[in-house]
Amino acid sequence: MHELADSDEPGQPREGCGVFGVFGVPDAAPVIFQGLFALQHRGQEGAGIVVSDGRVVRVKKGPGLVGEVFSETAWSDLPGDRGIGHVRYSTTGSPRPENIQPLVVECLDGIWAIAHNGNLVNAASMRRMYQEAGAIFQTTTDSEILIHLLADPMYRMRPRPVGRALGDLKGAFAFLMMTKNCVMAARDPLGFKPLSIGRLGDGLVFASETCALVQIGAEYVRDVQPGELVVVDGNGMRGSTFFEPEKGRSAQCIFEHVYFARPDSIVFGRSVHAARLRLGERLAEEHPAEADIVIAVPDSGNSAALGFSRGSGIPLDYGFIRNHYVGRTFIMPSDAKRKSSVDMKLAVVSDVVRDKRVVVVDDSIIRGHTARRRIECLRKAGASQVHMRVASPPTTHPCFFGIDFATTEELIAADMTVDQIRDYIRADSLGYISVEGLLSAVGMPDRYCTACFSGDYPVEIGEGHGKAALESAAPLLDFSANGKKARA
Amino acid sequence: MHELADSDEPGQPREGCGVFGVFGVPDAAPVIFQGLFALQHRGQEGAGIVVSDGRVVRVKKGPGLVGEVFSETAWSDLPGDRGIGHVRYSTTGSPRPENIQPLVVECLDGIWAIAHNGNLVNAASMRRMYQEAGAIFQTTTDSEILIHLLADPMYRMRPRPVGRALGDLKGAFAFLMMTKNCVMAARDPLGFKPLSIGRLGDGLVFASETCALVQIGAEYVRDVQPGELVVVDGNGMRGSTFFEPEKGRSAQCIFEHVYFARPDSIVFGRSVHAARLRLGERLAEEHPAEADIVIAVPDSGNSAALGFSRGSGIPLDYGFIRNHYVGRTFIMPSDAKRKSSVDMKLAVVSDVVRDKRVVVVDDSIIRGHTARRRIECLRKAGASQVHMRVASPPTTHPCFFGIDFATTEELIAADMTVDQIRDYIRADSLGYISVEGLLSAVGMPDRYCTACFSGDYPVEIGEGHGKAALESAAPLLDFSANGKKARA
Amino acid sequence: MHELADSDEPGQPREGCGVFGVFGVPDAAPVIFQGLFALQHRGQEGAGIVVSDGRVVRVKKGPGLVGEVFSETAWSDLPGDRGIGHVRYSTTGSPRPENIQPLVVECLDGIWAIAHNGNLVNAASMRRMYQEAGAIFQTTTDSEILIHLLADPMYRMRPRPVGRALGDLKGAFAFLMMTKNCVMAARDPLGFKPLSIGRLGDGLVFASETCALVQIGAEYVRDVQPGELVVVDGNGMRGSTFFEPEKGRSAQCIFEHVYFARPDSIVFGRSVHAARLRLGERLAEEHPAEADIVIAVPDSGNSAALGFSRGSGIPLDYGFIRNHYVGRTFIMPSDAKRKSSVDMKLAVVSDVVRDKRVVVVDDSIIRGHTARRRIECLRKAGASQVHMRVASPPTTHPCFFGIDFATTEELIAADMTVDQIRDYIRADSLGYISVEGLLSAVGMPDRYCTACFSGDYPVEIGEGHGKAALESAAPLLDFSANGKKARA
Amino acid sequence: MHELADSDEPGQPREGCGVFGVFGVPDAAPVIFQGLFALQHRGQEGAGIVVSDGRVVRVKKGPGLVGEVFSETAWSDLPGDRGIGHVRYSTTGSPRPENIQPLVVECLDGIWAIAHNGNLVNAASMRRMYQEAGAIFQTTTDSEILIHLLADPMYRMRPRPVGRALGDLKGAFAFLMMTKNCVMAARDPLGFKPLSIGRLGDGLVFASETCALVQIGAEYVRDVQPGELVVVDGNGMRGSTFFEPEKGRSAQCIFEHVYFARPDSIVFGRSVHAARLRLGERLAEEHPAEADIVIAVPDSGNSAALGFSRGSGIPLDYGFIRNHYVGRTFIMPSDAKRKSSVDMKLAVVSDVVRDKRVVVVDDSIIRGHTARRRIECLRKAGASQVHMRVASPPTTHPCFFGIDFATTEELIAADMTVDQIRDYIRADSLGYISVEGLLSAVGMPDRYCTACFSGDYPVEIGEGHGKAALESAAPLLDFSANGKKARA
Repeated sequence: MHELADSDEPGQPREGCGVFGVFGVPDAAPVIFQGLFALQHRGQEGAGIVVSDGRVVRVKKGPGLVGEVFSETAWSDLPGDRGIGHVRYSTTGSPRPENIQPLVVECLDGIWAIAHNGNLVNAASMRRMYQEAGAIFQTTTDSEILIHLLADPMYRMRPRPVGRALGDLKGAFAFLMMTKNCVMAARDPLGFKPLSIGRLGDGLVFASETCALVQIGAEYVRDVQPGELVVVDGNGMRGSTFFEPEKGRSAQCIFEHVYFARPDSIVFGRSVHAARLRLGERLAEEHPAEADIVIAVPDSGNSAALGFSRGSGIPLDYGFIRNHYVGRTFIMPSDAKRKSSVDMKLAVVSDVVRDKRVVVVDDSIIRGHTARRRIECLRKAGASQVHMRVASPPTTHPCFFGIDFATTEELIAADMTVDQIRDYIRADSLGYISVEGLLSAVGMPDRYCTACFSGDYPVEIGEGHGKAALESAAPLLDFSANGKKARA
Repeated sequence: MHELADSDEPGQPREGCGVFGVFGVPDAAPVIFQGLFALQHRGQEGAGIVVSDGRVVRVKKGPGLVGEVFSETAWSDLPGDRGIGHVRYSTTGSPRPENIQPLVVECLDGIWAIAHNGNLVNAASMRRMYQEAGAIFQTTTDSEILIHLLADPMYRMRPRPVGRALGDLKGAFAFLMMTKNCVMAARDPLGFKPLSIGRLGDGLVFASETCALVQIGAEYVRDVQPGELVVVDGNGMRGSTFFEPEKGRSAQCIFEHVYFARPDSIVFGRSVHAARLRLGERLAEEHPAEADIVIAVPDSGNSAALGFSRGSGIPLDYGFIRNHYVGRTFIMPSDAKRKSSVDMKLAVVSDVVRDKRVVVVDDSIIRGHTARRRIECLRKAGASQVHMRVASPPTTHPCFFGIDFATTEELIAADMTVDQIRDYIRADSLGYISVEGLLSAVGMPDRYCTACFSGDYPVEIGEGHGKAALESAAPLLDFSANGKKARA
Repeated sequence: MHELADSDEPGQPREGCGVFGVFGVPDAAPVIFQGLFALQHRGQEGAGIVVSDGRVVRVKKGPGLVGEVFSETAWSDLPGDRGIGHVRYSTTGSPRPENIQPLVVECLDGIWAIAHNGNLVNAASMRRMYQEAGAIFQTTTDSEILIHLLADPMYRMRPRPVGRALGDLKGAFAFLMMTKNCVMAARDPLGFKPLSIGRLGDGLVFASETCALVQIGAEYVRDVQPGELVVVDGNGMRGSTFFEPEKGRSAQCIFEHVYFARPDSIVFGRSVHAARLRLGERLAEEHPAEADIVIAVPDSGNSAALGFSRGSGIPLDYGFIRNHYVGRTFIMPSDAKRKSSVDMKLAVVSDVVRDKRVVVVDDSIIRGHTARRRIECLRKAGASQVHMRVASPPTTHPCFFGIDFATTEELIAADMTVDQIRDYIRADSLGYISVEGLLSAVGMPDRYCTACFSGDYPVEIGEGHGKAALESAAPLLDFSANGKKARA
Repeated sequence: MHELADSDEPGQPREGCGVFGVFGVPDAAPVIFQGLFALQHRGQEGAGIVVSDGRVVRVKKGPGLVGEVFSETAWSDLPGDRGIGHVRYSTTGSPRPENIQPLVVECLDGIWAIAHNGNLVNAASMRRMYQEAGAIFQTTTDSEILIHLLADPMYRMRPRPVGRALGDLKGAFAFLMMTKNCVMAARDPLGFKPLSIGRLGDGLVFASETCALVQIGAEYVRDVQPGELVVVDGNGMRGSTFFEPEKGRSAQCIFEHVYFARPDSIVFGRSVHAARLRLGERLAEEHPAEADIVIAVPDSGNSAALGFSRGSGIPLDYGFIRNHYVGRTFIMPSDAKRKSSVDMKLAVVSDVVRDKRVVVVDDSIIRGHTARRRIECLRKAGASQVHMRVASPPTTHPCFFGIDFATTEELIAADMTVDQIRDYIRADSLGYISVEGLLSAVGMPDRYCTACFSGDYPVEIGEGHGKAALESAAPLLDFSANGKKARA
């Protein structure tokens, strides 16, 4: 599973956000808190909750983990039975506080709050069009464009304004929206991002992953459908199609199964742990190894390593121990850091690997630095051979739909062959699962986006399309001093 | 002079803001810091500095005193030779962080930052108009409307956009504006609020009061004229009239001389201390007293008390001692507070007032509670008689141009005669200076707004006009939980 | 492995501290930081580092995790090539800041700093004796008595003062001590607590567990021997026996292998992970089960579960997922907490356990509440049978040597049979490893203290002996307001 | 009056502490808070309150102003009807948190808390003696020695232990002491430091100055007598002489009247404001000036300036305006600081001094830097002549009884004549009040210590006598990293 993004591991794919909302649930705020807590692995840089009691909309948000942002919250300050929440992963070094979601604005009609998981590839061009007309943007997120559409009389004054606005967005999105009276949920027509509906008592719940439903004791009902807008208010819940997806087209993010989602979640209708077990089994078929033990890079490689062990018959063991106290809160002296070839997060259990031929299973290799360093640690601890097995195919293309991979230049598989990568990371052998193997292990192979392995993007990408497009287009304004303290 | 607004003194008039800016001054940020520090008496609830190095605009702002907001600032994080700053006094209980100025936005053309002292009486109606067209407002300040005008292609695409935008504003304003390249300053056509220009080395400086020029070692040049827009950039400084004020009309705020400005400032061309001395002398003429000593309510009554002493020949003494450590940072137990008839801020010097007939001079009486309590303290300490003298006329009408008086209902002079007020505050005698006396003491009597004494407003006031109009129109959104910690 | 003590799990045994020291290691402070970081699982409530550059002794310590206490430390403020550090677990609700170690005092001779892992059973009586003579104690820790012995002229003025002082202590201890010139290490004569020596470059290192040696890249040299005092200063390292342990007597804490130590450590000469694997294998022999899968309670049961799987042939699977973001920083609303039968820390992977007969392996059962709740979660997720296997014998007696078990009353095994416990936790079957099985799995059976299983204490326990003896003897002084903020 | 010690004014004398205590006052803590608040001018670097409900003693203390330390205190965490408090001024750069008073320890008998104003000249030698016997000191304050005496069986086991202990102390002290049951107050036999007794309802109050009695609404009863120990407990109040002062000898600190005490206090039986008025009048007699106006250096010179004006007939005016927002919380960029000849704290009112011959009155000149800079500011603002008048004689000798003057080397009057000082500070004339003038103005001339003017110390000063003696004797231990954050 996932952890605080640490600078030791620049190569891990990192997700952009989780959303959670409820309607008709008494004391909504602490319930949303628990839901976000279960989605924390989807974003650790900011969190927020917006609730309404039908009269006033109240907001609390801030940088950091859910537990930090709400550590001393008096829940009575956030009354109401409906609300939405968000955990955010941002791509910039110095996150602007304005960018923390849910975004909340006052319009003529009242309050709108939105929480977004995904990436809109036409946000930059639409933003420019609105700015030319005089609009002022508060954030550098792609998500904000939806607020402007909702406030625009061209939408607001016509029937089905929310559906129309969503229909004009291109890219990947799972959106939760709310006014003081109602909560809405929507997924993009190709269904990139997961979004599930649950029931808790008489109330309804929306969550990026089902693990958050389980966390609060809610029962799974169904997924929000691609292209569907679900509205829940005092009159109950109703869904409608805001955009009819092209017959049979679907582009679910395969990396949800490979890496993002928690193993105990059911995502796109499939158990994540079960999928990963099959990935490991398939990997053992495609890339067998002569070895004594199989170990995982914890926790992201755990399930696949178990699958590999089962598939290969090579015994599983625990070769890495994870230090649970790694966080963002300390500054290593740069010298110590530079010199240190040891890892603050994973420690090798020498007794396990000494004089052994070791298969190491991880979910992916992005830049290769981390894999190289870990293999070095294993050898130092006495491993006689190290065979790397990767539960996803080589990542050759950037993602424009919400995954913060490295840029193309940084993707090691973009311009190295598998043999070259093997040499770079100094493994005795290296095996990636094939795209076919991946899809067959997950099941329903035609429903997934595999652009990061193939470059075959399911939505046309214009210019200025990346997640950071708006941020890099705005280097003129710098809020970083605001959060900083003096360092003379 | 002025101090932290404390809940012991709900009746004091409280100002709305000070502005300070520089262009062509190396290391602008710490200079702006010093300037704001000298203007701290104009607003204590928030402060901000925006600077530019000609390329990037950088911002730091936050709630609290200038010294608190910038206490640990590394000035190197705020490089540049131009910038503007603001100290804010807000009228709401739980200030929204978004409202702290300078307001800064990114538009198509680049960055705009604005800092405002005053109140715009047509902001609410213009805001509604823009909202109907789809605009989204980030703050509940009246000041934000200027941002929207500047971004609006109706202004932006035409000649002299800034002047036009300013010309469409109604009410009181001293504005500083900046882009990455230039700093601008403007005063409303009736000149409600002061704004001076100074020179520091090769650079130019703008400040609400001249005391801030002196603080940084700058030389006074001239005032920004009513209706004038002054622009300073790499090509130097030039002024132009954006609105031709009606011949001879002027509405300088008389309360700058009575209370707001620091005694060492020259405001509207006059020394504040000298004006207050004359107020005291005139007061002694209009309302003589048979008494043994004259004492001031420090520090706001100091100069006038000295004038009274000089005018009357009654010796001055120090009857009140001010505790300099009163701040906002502590919570008195409510019981202790209720029972306490003593004052945390002013202590009576019993030795001075015992068995004396005392003249007490203060700048104004707003609600009367504080005056009543202070007189009670003097009697308790042994004063045989207490004669209250007030260096401004009875305040009978609210201000719509930037002073946060009480509402009409709370203004004691709105529905009590002077005799009734004297009885309420339990003074042996009570004398207010007359409007004529006030104006003649200050000089140039036709140049001042005296609406708070007469109800004769120099600008027509529409509906939804007060400073808090936008805030009270927006009770639907509550950010207060954001700043609060749990209190179980 | 171990984690932040959370109130959800009052029944887990909790350790009292880890120590780490270096001599002759340039930039000692960040190295000690890393060492403590690797020992964080031994105590999470406070941390401290004391260093010396041979001239001045410098201290930094505080409540919380190592990463929190030193999050913004400028290492240049802590110069020197020698120092000691400590991570603390305290037994009281409101930890006194004075109790955070290393304890540092100035005596006539200079500075003494000490860091202690263990518990001294004669501290209370010695403290009373010293107090009668006028001594003033700064803390409520048992460790402080050593400071007073070191300062006492009865020891100080005689040969071998440190050895004599240590020789008069009774109970369990691994001590690190330092002056500005030297670092010392000592273990009690029965060797309750582990303490290893390593080499880093030209310098020497002391650590509670070898995982901390590996973390900093040091090489293991040997263990400090029971009854040995090791001194290292500019003249090198030398050891001497301060107390000759009774021939063959030894009382190593068996719980280091069962629970406390990190799996990658070598403790008392044995690999912890390997010992736990054997515990699991032995458990499978002693208490076989008819089941479909074996799952661990992560992370403390991981190794034993793997051993059980290997021993029994029943496949391992991951039935629990751990949320890594559980910390101490948030307050759950009490209602939500009460109602919630779900766990913030462990989530069940339903897909794994549904309709399965599940063997759950954990390291110990203390009070039984947690085991009961976890079994309930498994059943709710669809497990058809739950067989609990425990890698330690029933814990029937309290520990007086440094483990914070519950009191006797709270130990479920103190007055329930295994059958009664099985019924209480609602398992289909329950099997504890036998004491013989435990000892034979660990190896060298006669070297361990097993008092918590047998009540057979290797050191006579007087009155007022528990870890909290001094704290409960001192209910007259309350510092808790000092750390608290107002909650009206 | 006094203010936050700021680095702009290294030359001001700075006091060491104020004490406040109550017995039999319900909700003692907030009352003590108010009392300390009124004594804040006596020390701004730390504050603490200790209370008892007759069963448990509770403590809260910390660095900073009273209002800061207790800003978020829930008074219900500090229950009880008796307690003592302290405001501290420390002489070291990086104050050790351990040194903040009241000091509180647990002894065999229970809890002792002490709060001290003054300086003990035999503390260092007694400390050494105790250390040789094995005692461990927690602080570097001279005050701690009393704790050790109270715990020593040589005192504790005999009659009248507290009186005996106090009788063995040499130097200046006003002590408040408490156990869970009683509160005690004592003054040294020569009466250096003031300490008054008041009555509040049925309870009793002790305070360094009467202004604190007035603040809480208490009535003045009498002063604690030199050499007297006053005890108050459930049986009422009784006083006894612990040391019979030599007939007629007395050494009240004259600087209480010159500078330390608040003008509204009655100190040593005299009104402080009245004494200062007389100082000014006498100064006008001794050193008349041909001048147009008299101005004070606010606030410390206010009363004397008024006296000078009255005595000379030269009109008073307000030439300096004080910025009330000067605190310790901001860091001026060192460049800006160096270049700045202007003052952050005092601003000149140019209009007042321009083309005037100005008499400036201050309470004292210590190093001369500040006086020189202020005179420069006056000239820059247009003053034609500046005549400095000082309401105390030249300070030629250091104080060993609690005043933190500069060292002898830094005292400008230690090796410069008045003419030389006048030249250094660039005044047109300079006049100090004579010692005779000072004493006659204050009254009862033989009761005061005037050692700082004469070097004639009323108590023999041994070696290692200064306030910082213990601190400078202890340069081996450095806690400064503890309070610091990283500055890379």
